[in-house]
Amino acid sequence: MSGEKGFCLWFTGLSGAGKTTISKLVEHELRDRRSRVEILDGDVIRENLSKGLGFSKEDRDTNIRRIAFVADLLSRNGVPVMTAAISPYEAIRGEARETMGTRFIEIYVKASVEVCAERDVKGLYKKAFAGEIKEFTGVSDPYEPPKAPEITLDTEHQEAEESAAQVIAYLEERELIPVREGAVV
Amino acid sequence: MSGEKGFCLWFTGLSGAGKTTISKLVEHELRDRRSRVEILDGDVIRENLSKGLGFSKEDRDTNIRRIAFVADLLSRNGVPVMTAAISPYEAIRGEARETMGTRFIEIYVKASVEVCAERDVKGLYKKAFAGEIKEFTGVSDPYEPPKAPEITLDTEHQEAEESAAQVIAYLEERELIPVREGAVV
Repeated sequence: MSGEKGFCLWFTGLSGAGKTTISKLVEHELRDRRSRVEILDGDVIRENLSKGLGFSKEDRDTNIRRIAFVADLLSRNGVPVMTAAISPYEAIRGEARETMGTRFIEIYVKASVEVCAERDVKGLYKKAFAGEIKEFTGVSDPYEPPKAPEITLDTEHQEAEESAAQVIAYLEERELIPVREGAVV
Repeated sequence: MSGEKGFCLWFTGLSGAGKTTISKLVEHELRDRRSRVEILDGDVIRENLSKGLGFSKEDRDTNIRRIAFVADLLSRNGVPVMTAAISPYEAIRGEARETMGTRFIEIYVKASVEVCAERDVKGLYKKAFAGEIKEFTGVSDPYEPPKAPEITLDTEHQEAEESAAQVIAYLEERELIPVREGAVV
């Protein structure tokens, strides 16, 4: 198999939940299997496709729609793609699901605000609680958890490596990725 | 060959020069050969990635940079892509070329303002000459022709079908597309 089955791993969750870390581990594994893959990171997309947009609901929606537009272009051409934006609103994720159909795989990267704030890798929660960042998801802006995600990753209780393995196992089960070279199957 | 060689056919030229018509003919031929292909049409991109942008030099540049960003994502993953925006400025087309390297194939769709205005398929030139549309390329806004395009299509002196055949011949020569099924080679 030559990795020609396009799909979209749509990671969603709070800042600090583990979206980027896990998506990079999955990317690494896919590349090892010689599968194509692109990560549409929230920050990269904001820089290249959404400069000038802010963090109001309307601007967030526009940003997420653009990510979905590009994810659809890639995945419908057989390129596996991962998105790792917070994507807090159920309705817009629903639009992406509608566009991509069975190619859309929603992954809820689950961790509470308390745990994410404790990790506070980028120091953003501290600023958000101090009121220095407005419209911060989970603090001063809503996060709507997925109602029926294809995969839920409980990052409060498992390591990033276990979460990545869970995603890979799902993709193998659906026969969406090449088997590991040298693997006995 | 499974169409896995990504490239970007970057059509550039005045409104009415024939970019969209020719790109659709090329698309049709590629699909007949079971090659993947995406057209990034100027209007579609404006709707999905650049809503809110106008036609000032700065906004045009931003729009073209977004098209180039997406064209690069697709082509570097083996998906042939065509862009059919006016893309009037040499410098921004140069950026796209730098990003995509040998995947970037610039196609100058050549027709004078006079001929395009005579065709006036969308009735835009009439409005532009009447001053109803500001910043209209070729009339009230500059068009910088490519200095060294890979392909020049003289649409004043040849039909769209001939232009499309010229593009296909170029792609065949560079072995970027599958040969026609049943073709004797």
